[in-house]
Amino acid sequence: MADRAPSASGIGRVDVDDEVRVCVVGAGRAGMVHAENFRWRVPYARLEAVVEVEAERGARAAEELGLKKAYSALEEALASVPIDGVVITTPTFTHAELAVAAARAGKHILCEKPMALTLEECDLMIQAAKDAAVILQIAFMRRFDPAFVAAKRQIDDGLIGRPQIVRSLTRGPTLPPPWACDVRTGNGMLAEVNSHDFDTIRWLGGGSYTSVFSQASTLKAPELKEEYPGFYDTAVAVLRLDNDALGMLDGICPVDYGYDARAEVVGSEGVLLIGELRETATTRVTRQDGMVERHYGSWRDRFRKAYVEEATHFVACIRGNQEPAVTGWDGRHALEAVLAANQSIRTGQPVALPLTG
Amino acid sequence: MADRAPSASGIGRVDVDDEVRVCVVGAGRAGMVHAENFRWRVPYARLEAVVEVEAERGARAAEELGLKKAYSALEEALASVPIDGVVITTPTFTHAELAVAAARAGKHILCEKPMALTLEECDLMIQAAKDAAVILQIAFMRRFDPAFVAAKRQIDDGLIGRPQIVRSLTRGPTLPPPWACDVRTGNGMLAEVNSHDFDTIRWLGGGSYTSVFSQASTLKAPELKEEYPGFYDTAVAVLRLDNDALGMLDGICPVDYGYDARAEVVGSEGVLLIGELRETATTRVTRQDGMVERHYGSWRDRFRKAYVEEATHFVACIRGNQEPAVTGWDGRHALEAVLAANQSIRTGQPVALPLTG
Amino acid sequence: MADRAPSASGIGRVDVDDEVRVCVVGAGRAGMVHAENFRWRVPYARLEAVVEVEAERGARAAEELGLKKAYSALEEALASVPIDGVVITTPTFTHAELAVAAARAGKHILCEKPMALTLEECDLMIQAAKDAAVILQIAFMRRFDPAFVAAKRQIDDGLIGRPQIVRSLTRGPTLPPPWACDVRTGNGMLAEVNSHDFDTIRWLGGGSYTSVFSQASTLKAPELKEEYPGFYDTAVAVLRLDNDALGMLDGICPVDYGYDARAEVVGSEGVLLIGELRETATTRVTRQDGMVERHYGSWRDRFRKAYVEEATHFVACIRGNQEPAVTGWDGRHALEAVLAANQSIRTGQPVALPLTG
Amino acid sequence: MADRAPSASGIGRVDVDDEVRVCVVGAGRAGMVHAENFRWRVPYARLEAVVEVEAERGARAAEELGLKKAYSALEEALASVPIDGVVITTPTFTHAELAVAAARAGKHILCEKPMALTLEECDLMIQAAKDAAVILQIAFMRRFDPAFVAAKRQIDDGLIGRPQIVRSLTRGPTLPPPWACDVRTGNGMLAEVNSHDFDTIRWLGGGSYTSVFSQASTLKAPELKEEYPGFYDTAVAVLRLDNDALGMLDGICPVDYGYDARAEVVGSEGVLLIGELRETATTRVTRQDGMVERHYGSWRDRFRKAYVEEATHFVACIRGNQEPAVTGWDGRHALEAVLAANQSIRTGQPVALPLTG
Repeated sequence: MADRAPSASGIGRVDVDDEVRVCVVGAGRAGMVHAENFRWRVPYARLEAVVEVEAERGARAAEELGLKKAYSALEEALASVPIDGVVITTPTFTHAELAVAAARAGKHILCEKPMALTLEECDLMIQAAKDAAVILQIAFMRRFDPAFVAAKRQIDDGLIGRPQIVRSLTRGPTLPPPWACDVRTGNGMLAEVNSHDFDTIRWLGGGSYTSVFSQASTLKAPELKEEYPGFYDTAVAVLRLDNDALGMLDGICPVDYGYDARAEVVGSEGVLLIGELRETATTRVTRQDGMVERHYGSWRDRFRKAYVEEATHFVACIRGNQEPAVTGWDGRHALEAVLAANQSIRTGQPVALPLTG
Repeated sequence: MADRAPSASGIGRVDVDDEVRVCVVGAGRAGMVHAENFRWRVPYARLEAVVEVEAERGARAAEELGLKKAYSALEEALASVPIDGVVITTPTFTHAELAVAAARAGKHILCEKPMALTLEECDLMIQAAKDAAVILQIAFMRRFDPAFVAAKRQIDDGLIGRPQIVRSLTRGPTLPPPWACDVRTGNGMLAEVNSHDFDTIRWLGGGSYTSVFSQASTLKAPELKEEYPGFYDTAVAVLRLDNDALGMLDGICPVDYGYDARAEVVGSEGVLLIGELRETATTRVTRQDGMVERHYGSWRDRFRKAYVEEATHFVACIRGNQEPAVTGWDGRHALEAVLAANQSIRTGQPVALPLTG
Repeated sequence: MADRAPSASGIGRVDVDDEVRVCVVGAGRAGMVHAENFRWRVPYARLEAVVEVEAERGARAAEELGLKKAYSALEEALASVPIDGVVITTPTFTHAELAVAAARAGKHILCEKPMALTLEECDLMIQAAKDAAVILQIAFMRRFDPAFVAAKRQIDDGLIGRPQIVRSLTRGPTLPPPWACDVRTGNGMLAEVNSHDFDTIRWLGGGSYTSVFSQASTLKAPELKEEYPGFYDTAVAVLRLDNDALGMLDGICPVDYGYDARAEVVGSEGVLLIGELRETATTRVTRQDGMVERHYGSWRDRFRKAYVEEATHFVACIRGNQEPAVTGWDGRHALEAVLAANQSIRTGQPVALPLTG
Repeated sequence: MADRAPSASGIGRVDVDDEVRVCVVGAGRAGMVHAENFRWRVPYARLEAVVEVEAERGARAAEELGLKKAYSALEEALASVPIDGVVITTPTFTHAELAVAAARAGKHILCEKPMALTLEECDLMIQAAKDAAVILQIAFMRRFDPAFVAAKRQIDDGLIGRPQIVRSLTRGPTLPPPWACDVRTGNGMLAEVNSHDFDTIRWLGGGSYTSVFSQASTLKAPELKEEYPGFYDTAVAVLRLDNDALGMLDGICPVDYGYDARAEVVGSEGVLLIGELRETATTRVTRQDGMVERHYGSWRDRFRKAYVEEATHFVACIRGNQEPAVTGWDGRHALEAVLAANQSIRTGQPVALPLTG
């Protein structure tokens, strides 16, 4: 099987009979989730390469994945093995450069959220993918989670009428990495953790953002505030969409109790409650402990299936069987709202969207 | 207001405008539940008297209920204050005598389960009530619980088709009293605790029992087996109805974890799950304890509303506004199945129903 | 039993052995809930009078409650029968005048929410109650709901650590009355419906409001916008407390699907989910309909027990057995936040709290 | 990679670094579940062959699985490609012959339930596997379901004390195939559907069966009773274990509402509720439909993860990383109880276990 160039017409795609060859960039937690999925659980995919700048971590990843070695740079991998799709899971500030490089090499791209640090980076990524006629999918995996998918379908079927309010939340057990906690080098928790909620509100609310107001506090890790100016660990936001639907989100990181991602859509004819904290359908009842169930401790467990479905969708798009469902524009819209929310936190004022240059 | 004799035609009833005057016999746990309800929570009812043989307990009850005194015998109460209805909550072996006395005095009767110790006693009670044209209601309060009522209505509306299997269970935190644990003087846990399940299976299953098979073990309080021959604390039973529906029940007393009463009806077009262990719609989630909810610890809490509704129904029947929903025949049928189940436990064989003299 | 004046020292109270005599003002929906509770379900209470300006409705209420007649004015009732406590359930704009009159007559007061239309009215009511040494309880009945009570106790016990975010919502099937929809004569849905949420956030969040930001839309009944300037049927708000906890609430009225009141408190060591939509623990599963449960259609059903507990608390306070748990100050704080939220909706800006004269 | 013979010592196993090569026999519904799992979702497994006697179905299966062809007989497949493990999913009456053939060829065996038609067949299979030192795993996949696994672990950890009652149920939407409905050629629903429940009771109850009593009815498909003597579609059974724990199970096939598999274990210190009907954590609430959730319609969906875990376990055992968790003896015990239950249905009497030749 020789490497395949994108077709002249539109998005270049591999033959349906062939397996899609994937390179995962980054062997951190998210990277390993993707790598293991492409290795073992995604039909018609073949994990060909893993790229990791940290040598020891790369070697360990290669061993776990049954690969001969890990590459230290994307270019090295692309030069060594035939690749159809690149999965970018490295820190946010590296996304744009990697995505543009992948696009220029004619590779399809699945990029972790948040898409990038700035709207300018987003624009570069979108343009590069367009120029190369490759897929640029942003990893909002909730769009592939069974609970969210069922909700979206019911909204589209009109079962709850017109959306009036969308609530979405994400609370997780681990702090974003230091560079993300520092608002001089990252966009904070709202970007690293709540990107999903911004996307969910727009996706399920069915409109475009027209304004955001956000408030934040530092209650769980106040000691970090000295180190990282602008650091916050608790935030809420209110969004308005151009169809007059209202959005609400909240985020806390780190939260002590586990991993929590739920949403709710109130429509003119009904309401949808999406997701839950409970992990396993086993209930123990004892006098001493009460009625006890196990809850999610990690996004890896909560969205295990969603990650596989997301990867499967990426492969199906590359093979030409599906149309990309989450594009660079979705990533850019979410980032724009995050940037505006951070501005609102700083100024104490609501911020109109879209942001004006 | 003078005492009112039953009317000549059928069941004697008090005028709709009047309050129904109630005497509760027995100031134990069940007695106090009834007494408090008739005192505070049942419209058009007035608690006039409490009867309790144990003087100190009677005095305490009277005080709690805001009554001047407690009577030591039913006849004393009936001779002292005008009464329309008598509520019998004393040990099972006293039911028949008290009920017959109340009936002969022209008083309507609400009798706790199990109805009596023997079928002969049941027959005496039914005949006495019939002769006096008074109501004889057996306290199967589950028939008034919102969850069970909703299920019954859905079955009657045909929403799950024809019942094929009815499962019912009762597990409680406290042993029946010693006389009931001793099968020489009582009918054991199946009578004192699982009477409700026998009634539920017949009520929701929509047929008459044709056979029962039961198995028992003594796993929780084996030390009682020496004291009480035939004692068991764990039992299951399988029933067949004449419409070929099958019934299953189980009981454990004492059970360590709380109070548990649930049922399930599988029909040809659907299933009904009835009741739950959870008491309060408050969920706490912490890393250490997991996802925790409060569950029922007592039948008083689980069936709080059912007891009020049951009492309200009794009053409504006396006032002529409703037809009695749970009669002496229902009590007799349940007892017959209990006796047969105990026989099955002893012999290891299924027992046909109805029992033949 | 003669009428009893308040004692010289502090709050005047009736003797513990006596029943508390209650007058309910207003025989609308909320008024009848209170009247029926004081008539049938509140120990040591006696419903003595109902006041209703609309003659026909008053007569109907009296009949349903087994009273001889209804009074057309509070003064008439107070002049006719001995009364210990007055329950005010009339439209908001009448609260202050009635409460002041009741206080001046030495009667304890249970006043429906919202407490009044303006902060000046609140101040008059608080002062009048203080001067007369009578109880002024505001009817935030959620504080007596088992789910909310359990949550509050767990927060106080430190089980979820320090509150970081409190979310609360109320959505109901019926529009507020016309005078309330018109922001020239009322304070809109946020006052009539979401007062509870403002109170919940302060109560469970454990701090005082420092700011509020609110957004509203008119999506369900846009035709009313012409009639009532400023009308909205959909609103969200973000609050900040002085302990840096953040609050979020939403409201929709009318909402098509039923009655919905839930809350959530995220603390530094855990989360509490409070309340649910499900009404009855009966689940039907059929191929065609799926897994179906009954949900709350009305606040009367959702908070049935809370209303009884609230009234029982009022009686217990009058009898000197409990300290008032929800005071005029609680009502005033909630109203202040409502007024600020309405101002935020009008201006598009956050509003600082407390409001400055 | 050459074919590998079992090692001389004990169970023969493949090298850890190698992939396990699998042949699935039978391309019916269960066969395709296994084949797809080994093809796409089981790490270190490689689906090498599918065997299907029906040519057209075999061709379709091969295409779906990306295999060049399907084989028409196990011997043909074994002669053509190197195979380490054989998965038997054909009708029950073929299990013994296929398993013995596979064992004699030195292949490890994963055999669908029920294990076989007779205890003699079970014995042959167990002996053949023992002689060949190959794994004989019976496909009681519930032992790998997260809810059942969590329950088992909690029992083993002593969290609910000593098991007193185990309840288990299976109800499914589709009739067993004709040969299984006919008790002259099969063992009916209790074998084909409720084998799992018999196994669950023994596994979670922690003892050996000492007796069974069963009752059956024909309520859903009575027309089949003429065609198939002894046919029943509704059954319940009571089991006793040698530790005096009691077991209860029920089964209905076809059941109209979906697929249902739940269990419950009551212990001396608590209770475990295992499994649920709800499939997706999305709740829709509308006035008209109530509170609606999606439930399981098929065992494929309910036990999707369990099938993958079961297959993964099979591969891990072959690779020497795990000890076989469900053996031929487990299959034989379940069959023995099924045979005794069918005898009980015929005779109306309880049947002692183990069965005596």
